[in-house]
Amino acid sequence: MTIGPSLDLVRMIVRRALSEDIGHGDVTTQAVVPTATRCAGVILARMPGVAAGIEVARIAFDEADASVTFNAGTQDGGGLAAGDVIARLAGPAASILTAERTALNFLQRMSGIATLTRRYVDAVAGLEVRILDTRKTAPGLRVLDKWAVTLGGGSNHRFGLYDGILIKDNHLRIAGGVAAAVRAARSAAPHSLKIQVEVETLGQVQQALDAGADALLLDNMGLADLRYAVEAVGGRALIEASGGVTLATVREIAETGVNYISVGALTHSPPALDIALEISQ
Amino acid sequence: MTIGPSLDLVRMIVRRALSEDIGHGDVTTQAVVPTATRCAGVILARMPGVAAGIEVARIAFDEADASVTFNAGTQDGGGLAAGDVIARLAGPAASILTAERTALNFLQRMSGIATLTRRYVDAVAGLEVRILDTRKTAPGLRVLDKWAVTLGGGSNHRFGLYDGILIKDNHLRIAGGVAAAVRAARSAAPHSLKIQVEVETLGQVQQALDAGADALLLDNMGLADLRYAVEAVGGRALIEASGGVTLATVREIAETGVNYISVGALTHSPPALDIALEISQ
Amino acid sequence: MTIGPSLDLVRMIVRRALSEDIGHGDVTTQAVVPTATRCAGVILARMPGVAAGIEVARIAFDEADASVTFNAGTQDGGGLAAGDVIARLAGPAASILTAERTALNFLQRMSGIATLTRRYVDAVAGLEVRILDTRKTAPGLRVLDKWAVTLGGGSNHRFGLYDGILIKDNHLRIAGGVAAAVRAARSAAPHSLKIQVEVETLGQVQQALDAGADALLLDNMGLADLRYAVEAVGGRALIEASGGVTLATVREIAETGVNYISVGALTHSPPALDIALEISQ
Amino acid sequence: MTIGPSLDLVRMIVRRALSEDIGHGDVTTQAVVPTATRCAGVILARMPGVAAGIEVARIAFDEADASVTFNAGTQDGGGLAAGDVIARLAGPAASILTAERTALNFLQRMSGIATLTRRYVDAVAGLEVRILDTRKTAPGLRVLDKWAVTLGGGSNHRFGLYDGILIKDNHLRIAGGVAAAVRAARSAAPHSLKIQVEVETLGQVQQALDAGADALLLDNMGLADLRYAVEAVGGRALIEASGGVTLATVREIAETGVNYISVGALTHSPPALDIALEISQ
Amino acid sequence: MTIGPSLDLVRMIVRRALSEDIGHGDVTTQAVVPTATRCAGVILARMPGVAAGIEVARIAFDEADASVTFNAGTQDGGGLAAGDVIARLAGPAASILTAERTALNFLQRMSGIATLTRRYVDAVAGLEVRILDTRKTAPGLRVLDKWAVTLGGGSNHRFGLYDGILIKDNHLRIAGGVAAAVRAARSAAPHSLKIQVEVETLGQVQQALDAGADALLLDNMGLADLRYAVEAVGGRALIEASGGVTLATVREIAETGVNYISVGALTHSPPALDIALEISQ
Amino acid sequence: MTIGPSLDLVRMIVRRALSEDIGHGDVTTQAVVPTATRCAGVILARMPGVAAGIEVARIAFDEADASVTFNAGTQDGGGLAAGDVIARLAGPAASILTAERTALNFLQRMSGIATLTRRYVDAVAGLEVRILDTRKTAPGLRVLDKWAVTLGGGSNHRFGLYDGILIKDNHLRIAGGVAAAVRAARSAAPHSLKIQVEVETLGQVQQALDAGADALLLDNMGLADLRYAVEAVGGRALIEASGGVTLATVREIAETGVNYISVGALTHSPPALDIALEISQ
Repeated sequence: MTIGPSLDLVRMIVRRALSEDIGHGDVTTQAVVPTATRCAGVILARMPGVAAGIEVARIAFDEADASVTFNAGTQDGGGLAAGDVIARLAGPAASILTAERTALNFLQRMSGIATLTRRYVDAVAGLEVRILDTRKTAPGLRVLDKWAVTLGGGSNHRFGLYDGILIKDNHLRIAGGVAAAVRAARSAAPHSLKIQVEVETLGQVQQALDAGADALLLDNMGLADLRYAVEAVGGRALIEASGGVTLATVREIAETGVNYISVGALTHSPPALDIALEISQ
Repeated sequence: MTIGPSLDLVRMIVRRALSEDIGHGDVTTQAVVPTATRCAGVILARMPGVAAGIEVARIAFDEADASVTFNAGTQDGGGLAAGDVIARLAGPAASILTAERTALNFLQRMSGIATLTRRYVDAVAGLEVRILDTRKTAPGLRVLDKWAVTLGGGSNHRFGLYDGILIKDNHLRIAGGVAAAVRAARSAAPHSLKIQVEVETLGQVQQALDAGADALLLDNMGLADLRYAVEAVGGRALIEASGGVTLATVREIAETGVNYISVGALTHSPPALDIALEISQ
Repeated sequence: MTIGPSLDLVRMIVRRALSEDIGHGDVTTQAVVPTATRCAGVILARMPGVAAGIEVARIAFDEADASVTFNAGTQDGGGLAAGDVIARLAGPAASILTAERTALNFLQRMSGIATLTRRYVDAVAGLEVRILDTRKTAPGLRVLDKWAVTLGGGSNHRFGLYDGILIKDNHLRIAGGVAAAVRAARSAAPHSLKIQVEVETLGQVQQALDAGADALLLDNMGLADLRYAVEAVGGRALIEASGGVTLATVREIAETGVNYISVGALTHSPPALDIALEISQ
Repeated sequence: MTIGPSLDLVRMIVRRALSEDIGHGDVTTQAVVPTATRCAGVILARMPGVAAGIEVARIAFDEADASVTFNAGTQDGGGLAAGDVIARLAGPAASILTAERTALNFLQRMSGIATLTRRYVDAVAGLEVRILDTRKTAPGLRVLDKWAVTLGGGSNHRFGLYDGILIKDNHLRIAGGVAAAVRAARSAAPHSLKIQVEVETLGQVQQALDAGADALLLDNMGLADLRYAVEAVGGRALIEASGGVTLATVREIAETGVNYISVGALTHSPPALDIALEISQ
Repeated sequence: MTIGPSLDLVRMIVRRALSEDIGHGDVTTQAVVPTATRCAGVILARMPGVAAGIEVARIAFDEADASVTFNAGTQDGGGLAAGDVIARLAGPAASILTAERTALNFLQRMSGIATLTRRYVDAVAGLEVRILDTRKTAPGLRVLDKWAVTLGGGSNHRFGLYDGILIKDNHLRIAGGVAAAVRAARSAAPHSLKIQVEVETLGQVQQALDAGADALLLDNMGLADLRYAVEAVGGRALIEASGGVTLATVREIAETGVNYISVGALTHSPPALDIALEISQ
Repeated sequence: MTIGPSLDLVRMIVRRALSEDIGHGDVTTQAVVPTATRCAGVILARMPGVAAGIEVARIAFDEADASVTFNAGTQDGGGLAAGDVIARLAGPAASILTAERTALNFLQRMSGIATLTRRYVDAVAGLEVRILDTRKTAPGLRVLDKWAVTLGGGSNHRFGLYDGILIKDNHLRIAGGVAAAVRAARSAAPHSLKIQVEVETLGQVQQALDAGADALLLDNMGLADLRYAVEAVGGRALIEASGGVTLATVREIAETGVNYISVGALTHSPPALDIALEISQ
């Protein structure tokens, strides 16, 4: 089933976003929209893509005014054609107008991420590999960025520094090598966490396996080296490839047999999906 | 001089981002990096662009550990070539490694925005027009997104619904027309705020001027119409053009004589600038 | 229509006030009022004035206990005679008693501000001038203080340092004169904000107009000088008079033809309106 | 020695006030004051009174910019003549200008309260009575309002519903009479709290004493009745008088021999003391 | 009637506890429990004791998901046999499983405290003495720890440093003796608070009485001395005994005639009551 | 090296604890301790045990007043004899007295946990097993409770629902058996997390292994069954035993060859270590 973040957390993020946009008040709406006026509206996709953030948009309108009704026209993760209705709204006009931009900003970013992810996932269709996100997310929006990745068909890597052990090159320069670092992690960290280590050479691969690493990160490695590493590991550890992965290269990387390919661009450079709200009185 | 946001606000955003990433603790670093180890590091640009977020990154390391020294190699708004040093760091290795990703996430997004903005600004070089941002920002990061725009040479539109009056098409559908809406705004809103209204026809332009609008928003209007509107207004109100502006079209739009061109893509779809931290012990 | 602040913001202020008063618990009520006891009560004006804060009081009881019913006897901005019913309450006695003081404190302050404002507004009846508030508000209560001013018939000046440009004497001492300051503001600030500058001499008035100021602040200027300035400006900028305005002097100041008169006392020294809650079992 | 509130609490109140005023940034100062400019300034009393809030103003500038120096010209509780220097400031001009209004708002309110309190205290000079505040404070500012009362020579009543038991008329209507209410309070509340009850008749005075009340509140009682009650109590409980106390009546009330006189106006209607900041470059 | 803390405060504590446990999401439940699945469950006591925290557990499930129904099988303060049903739950399985541990942690701690308190209260049955708690509570949980004490039949001492005056040995070393300290407290503190002082000798008892102390704290005093002090005080002040009180010694201490016996162990070392949730589909 | 939680998190917990205790102010200390008075003090163990919380106590005094000096007499995790100096303090007497109880409450709880943990660790000395904590911690104090466990020589289980997958009996009743649940978890959860499942029978052990579980939880299983399970698993998964473990039984459980033994009592029922602060002027 779908993994989504704690809704309390989402609600807090939405509240902050509304507060950031509304401040002491929406002076335009307060001035030109009579309090009693009601309206209807539709949220429309203006380009094709994958819907994400519908539940977040629902919360945005609900936080602005619990009397606004929000009926989703599709569901998170569903495909969108240009012109598709994402949701229908009805309620006090002032509330809908005040929450509009915040709701759309969430929808546009999350749908943008889901859409980009879907393209990577489609590019490796039929292969036994998963497309992963990274921690290169918009600060403060990690749970939403990662939720959008799963809605696009990708899988989540760890959410932060607290729920996964990933010993990277910068750690290795300080920790005294792969073997020492892996052993230190096994000794100190909760047994609920797997231990992953970034390796650059076949020697390091062997050291990591010997020290008991559960997973390897092969960063910026060529295809031949990736194939070689997959064979050397022989299933004794999970293998993740990363570094400069593009839609043009992702399939050939996947074909080396790695288990995971992580793509920073999914969350650090997703083009927004164009989505608009049209009000009808 | 440069407009930057309240540093208190920035500090709060940085704290939240660190907390989002660190949670109950950086289990990898705690396990493999001895507390007493110190290190040095450089933050490097890996592609050319415009630096932005250096002061935010400084705060990120400072919040993680006030004993980390952070010496900027350039300044916010400065140009970057691939390989340029953005900052040099020294201090406790654990602190630097723990704050690394958060600091880079801010730098990569803000520099991405500044770099994209600079391209738009350069595209209209020599013309009397300003490139503006919009409210299509990453939720929770508006002050940083808008700061980055100014570092790239752009100008800020209003920061939220509270510090500018912009009567848009959705408002007009409810408020009973341009004239009524502008008059309502003049009557109700603080006199410190200008009144801007979105118009689609020359008739509306005239109504807006008659009602005392201070600025007009011409959304998705063709070049000929823009020219016509500029002439009709004759300096009696500020004119902003918006809607589907690209690097290919921005100069011809500017040449119509509008005062402002707003570009949503600056903040809703900025490609991250590739920036890395390299640790040396 | 009436401008009121974001209700989310009001709710947060009310919550803090309840928390400030209740702390770990209302020991008196917990000790002497059985949990199951219900009661009714009326909130009464004990002196004539203008009602303000009714919606805030409603929130206070709602936050304390959503099962308390609150029926307003008049509406915010309405006139009150001594003995008038402001609201009728019914619900759990403990909840009503615990929230009583907090609700009354809001009502008394806001109604005091609205009442004082109404006196200034009445004093300039028939003239084309607006009575403005200032930023001299009780710290933490600005949106409520300013809401009360509008309920009394006054208009709001900017809400903070972020939603209006007002170059004051202290800025001018540093910025190198009126012309330089106004030009700097025009160059750096969002175009959504008008630029207002404090001027003391006719020469400065001319400099301000030449540099493109949208509004002038004439502080502590005599009536003759005000008249002279109004004529000199000739409608090219808005004019606000301020400084030591009293009920005795406000009309003659208004008759000089200024557009706005700001009165700090509305929010820094408003006498509370006497309002009480009477419980009947 | 002087009782002041927890400084952490004060700091949080000051931060909220700065945030309320500054929002996303002080656009005027950012536009017209170069970052590097430094200045000096003096905070001056413009009318005579009692200084209060100096330590709060110090915190306001410190929170805005820890590099601002703040040298008090007098101390909290000290007398002020018009023109007296309350503090001298030096530091970055932008920081001082940005924090100015917030600091002055605290100073003006607190000094206003202290000044009014001093007048009441002086009016009862030589008598064995204390002037008390009430819970009729500006919401969110109770600790500061009450601090100002002590700086004016008054004494604090309970800070909230949590640190004192005061059974008022509204409680009595529900609790079944004075005796039952006092006994319930004695049974349920922490022994660290005295039990005070509002009484209106001599019969109630006797009931309260019999039930073990520690203090009585005589609200809106005439002078003769007050004298009679004082005699009847004979020192077995503390006596507080309240209700419509003015500077004209406070001394005759005090002369009845009551121990405390509480004055709501000290904090619900204090006229601000006029205080200004003058910048010199 | 029973004294409980402000429910707003309880709700905030519960929210923090849920957030501490859930973080970005309950990955197990999200992975293995379909969103639509509903379930029922019972919360059972696994050992005999006193129920406490039922209302807190109710809030925990309500905060997790307002659609979960929670029917208490007994009430706070009621006795429990092993196997007794504390509450029956029904609702979305994911919500119940996610909130389970947080709810149980509150129940186990609070019931543990209530159970231990009941044992002390039972040990002094028939005597005119009250068992008190102290400020030795789990940081952040004071209102719950103290609520549990009352549910076990004990009484609350002050809740913090703000709602009671207790001059302890460490204060006396600095304040210059019992008489000076008591007089200072009488002069400076709100009259709503009683003044209690720790004394070690009969001379100090006399000084405290002479200075007007309302209550005495006799810490670690032998039985003979306690009896002597009780007689010397003769009802002129309340007497609390403390220090190393155990179930074996509490009755003989009570028989000396002291009014209160405070027991730190109630809240610093309460064994948790074993309580479990059993799900049935 | 030692794993400790994010110090930012600790600081926030300490601030809340101070605020809980101090509220609007420490009325006793404010009344009886002159502001200028300085003092020294020692924190002493009154019973033998293991020190924990020293760094937390340091933060408590630092948050109360950064000018207080705190010199630890031992270090976290060190052994204590009765009378040992844990820390020496010097600074403003008022600050030290105000923070005293909060600092001691942390020290007493954490040292109590560390001391109890050490007893379990010592009981299995020489065996290849680790003593684990659980999520049965005091709400809001999990990071400190778990830190204390590591200081006593134990190891941490997952910190919350977010950083480990543990499929328990209640999940299994809903998820349709061990195999289905483990497969669902493998499919949906981040690969950084190991998958642990509670099993009761050898059949379930086999299902769990077949489905790819990384670890098993054997709850309340007899010694013979534990031995049998250890042999059946043959190192293919980690094994944790739990349920009713006591100091009397922990060694025989360890001797069955399980990898981990989790003990809820470490954090749900730790007796506080007796620790005191003695002030000398």
